[in-house]
Amino acid sequence: MTKKPSVGALSAPLVESLIRDADTLRLGIERTATGATIVDAGISVRGGLEAGRRITEICLGGLGKATFSPDVRFPRWSTAIQITTADPVIACLGSQYAGWSLSEGDFFALGSGPARALWAQEKLFGELEYKDTVDSAALIMETDKRPPDTLIAHIAKECGVSEDKLTLILTPTTSLAGSVQVVGRVLEVALHKAHSIHFPLDRIVDGAGFAPVPPPAADFLGGMGRTNDAVLYGGEISLYVEGPEDEAEQLANGLPSSTSRDHGRPFGEVFAGYNYDFYACDAGLFSPAVVTVTALSTGKSFTAGAYEPKLIEKSFSGA
Amino acid sequence: MTKKPSVGALSAPLVESLIRDADTLRLGIERTATGATIVDAGISVRGGLEAGRRITEICLGGLGKATFSPDVRFPRWSTAIQITTADPVIACLGSQYAGWSLSEGDFFALGSGPARALWAQEKLFGELEYKDTVDSAALIMETDKRPPDTLIAHIAKECGVSEDKLTLILTPTTSLAGSVQVVGRVLEVALHKAHSIHFPLDRIVDGAGFAPVPPPAADFLGGMGRTNDAVLYGGEISLYVEGPEDEAEQLANGLPSSTSRDHGRPFGEVFAGYNYDFYACDAGLFSPAVVTVTALSTGKSFTAGAYEPKLIEKSFSGA
Amino acid sequence: MTKKPSVGALSAPLVESLIRDADTLRLGIERTATGATIVDAGISVRGGLEAGRRITEICLGGLGKATFSPDVRFPRWSTAIQITTADPVIACLGSQYAGWSLSEGDFFALGSGPARALWAQEKLFGELEYKDTVDSAALIMETDKRPPDTLIAHIAKECGVSEDKLTLILTPTTSLAGSVQVVGRVLEVALHKAHSIHFPLDRIVDGAGFAPVPPPAADFLGGMGRTNDAVLYGGEISLYVEGPEDEAEQLANGLPSSTSRDHGRPFGEVFAGYNYDFYACDAGLFSPAVVTVTALSTGKSFTAGAYEPKLIEKSFSGA
Repeated sequence: MTKKPSVGALSAPLVESLIRDADTLRLGIERTATGATIVDAGISVRGGLEAGRRITEICLGGLGKATFSPDVRFPRWSTAIQITTADPVIACLGSQYAGWSLSEGDFFALGSGPARALWAQEKLFGELEYKDTVDSAALIMETDKRPPDTLIAHIAKECGVSEDKLTLILTPTTSLAGSVQVVGRVLEVALHKAHSIHFPLDRIVDGAGFAPVPPPAADFLGGMGRTNDAVLYGGEISLYVEGPEDEAEQLANGLPSSTSRDHGRPFGEVFAGYNYDFYACDAGLFSPAVVTVTALSTGKSFTAGAYEPKLIEKSFSGA
Repeated sequence: MTKKPSVGALSAPLVESLIRDADTLRLGIERTATGATIVDAGISVRGGLEAGRRITEICLGGLGKATFSPDVRFPRWSTAIQITTADPVIACLGSQYAGWSLSEGDFFALGSGPARALWAQEKLFGELEYKDTVDSAALIMETDKRPPDTLIAHIAKECGVSEDKLTLILTPTTSLAGSVQVVGRVLEVALHKAHSIHFPLDRIVDGAGFAPVPPPAADFLGGMGRTNDAVLYGGEISLYVEGPEDEAEQLANGLPSSTSRDHGRPFGEVFAGYNYDFYACDAGLFSPAVVTVTALSTGKSFTAGAYEPKLIEKSFSGA
Repeated sequence: MTKKPSVGALSAPLVESLIRDADTLRLGIERTATGATIVDAGISVRGGLEAGRRITEICLGGLGKATFSPDVRFPRWSTAIQITTADPVIACLGSQYAGWSLSEGDFFALGSGPARALWAQEKLFGELEYKDTVDSAALIMETDKRPPDTLIAHIAKECGVSEDKLTLILTPTTSLAGSVQVVGRVLEVALHKAHSIHFPLDRIVDGAGFAPVPPPAADFLGGMGRTNDAVLYGGEISLYVEGPEDEAEQLANGLPSSTSRDHGRPFGEVFAGYNYDFYACDAGLFSPAVVTVTALSTGKSFTAGAYEPKLIEKSFSGA
């Protein structure tokens, strides 16, 4: 029918304007000796909510909109981030998902965003039948440290771009921009969980969702707790899928965070309970609180899950 | 005071970008033998919510904004479309209203959007004292069939443009884009009803409104039911009018869908009850659920109507 | 860290497009004999909500977004204006605050917007350590009268620009555009009050907020009442600050309108009670209803204040 869009080409103008507006957005820009561009979105600069919103749109590969909106569901936390896309599977899984694990020495970060589709070594890309071809790469890295030069060279090489065409955007989880860009994954985590419970991705036609923006925490664990809780206990999404109605119903019932054995406590507590071993946590926990799936074949919709205002309050108000 | 804007000129860049972004928006583009452009927004392609949003802004003649927003009024249906305009009467009645009835053989579709103001043969345009003059035309057609070539030629001729300057955008009522663009008429139906109950259009200064985006139905009748119900039982608008306060009050009391004898049941039931004869339905039904009219002359506001969450749930959840 | 942005340079393109789109936005444009541009946003023309939204973004010095959003908190008043910025202190205090008092003969108006940062004679600019340098100036004036030519010449001279580079935007408080642009100050009043209760401005990192758009009143006093009430009794904002947690708590407790002795009655009544002497009113009243302050140093948040739906209804529904 239609060709798959290039997340790299669509997001390139957004990356350029992010860099051009760096002073206004209170971002730091470093050009490395080898020509790469590093955008500091909250390590030694302030960044902010608007920087996070724009980084979220880059992370969605230029295929999505991230919009702040008043949220009246949780009394003290009145700003939500809403996500809509032109093509949710490519935007969220082909670009936004934090699927590129990058480490060197004691540096570690998850990489997300359009550069992943150039690399395209994750198994997911085979299933998406998607690989981007574009001469520039942008990678969002959840970190509060500058990556080492050798790792930067490695990323450029893996993406098949020269270093002067590589932009790395660093978003600490404790920063305002970092908080926004994690919560901006409210639709992506649903698609990823749909994939992990074996719903065929090519049947997912569209989606939309929103979640409250949490107050940034003072440390990494707190930030990880609150941004996850925003999605797990405050996120709501809609999905529109093709295929048999009963499979849409199974998808709805299988998706929300409440299906997980770890549901019901702030994520920080869950994580501590597993001695901070991320891979010991139930992967099924990472999903929105409320999910409505519409079977386009019959027009029937299925809803599962519920907001958890008390857990949101406990998580966001914790010191 | 100020000149009336050209809905054709203002929307032309939006039409161009819709066509340019067709792959990204999952739209199909056909250039006919005679040079016309046909945009398929959901017949043999997926389209999507974002395509519907952009088509809505084209339909508003480039004079309005259509914005997705979280909606917490109806538990399962969490995305609303909000409409604001720079000039509601020209945007909604001079462009968006589906007032051009087009048929040939067994093809039938209602046409809406900026091309209507070039044609300008509806009685409404005389009252608006408005006729557009621009060399390109865009018409939105609620249909799941491609219009015949002779009809395309007819439309171009009636608009006074060459066929290679004509764009037809096809939006089936069962598609995501089609659902959005119908519900995006929440302000327009109020203006149209205001006109039909003889409120002078030149006294309507401004307006804004929103309605929930329904899940697409599987068939035409279901789609027609849900998109109408979204407006009739979930739409809310504000109007700001000039003139005497008591006439603003009469307008408010006369506007909401609850003034109609047919109010209170899902539109699909109403329609079936009239043996699917659209013209047998009470025209007064087609209006938002809640209306607030402000008399600018005195600053007094009048509200009538109410949301109907149970009817929204019944309509949207029906198979 | 990063350089302070130029509110004049960032807003100049928005001023140009406002003038270019004047017919569409129903604004009046006058070029004075000496070359200045006067934009009438609601004196002898209609203007509208969208014009007000765009003027609000100019007033924020091109550093902020003003977005209409559905608001379900107050049954009859369903449109809110939401404010986010890239840099709240510069956007709101360096540009948006109505700090330039301009009078000549019987003409009086408060001036706000980017031109203030060129003039920069307010004490506040010394504390902000901010002065803009740009060759064009735009000033928003809350007035329903055209300023005299000698005052226009004075403003240009004080800003250090030639008159043909000066744009004055006139927004009567009773107009739609004027209502929007006053309520669009919901974040600004919080920052200004934070300053007046001696919270260091350089510790304010970010913020966001929203308030309901009131129906325009028929006279100046009514308009002043409703637009203030929209903020005082319907405004909600979040602030993110650096520094000790206890000072963030003090800020939260000190900020909302409920801290004022004059809280609890519609502003029109308060104002009348002081015989319409603005300076007799408690300055502490001018602040949002609900405030949440997050101490970024510890991640702890503090909320004070409450919506007052009955006061909103009383104010907005009054004739």
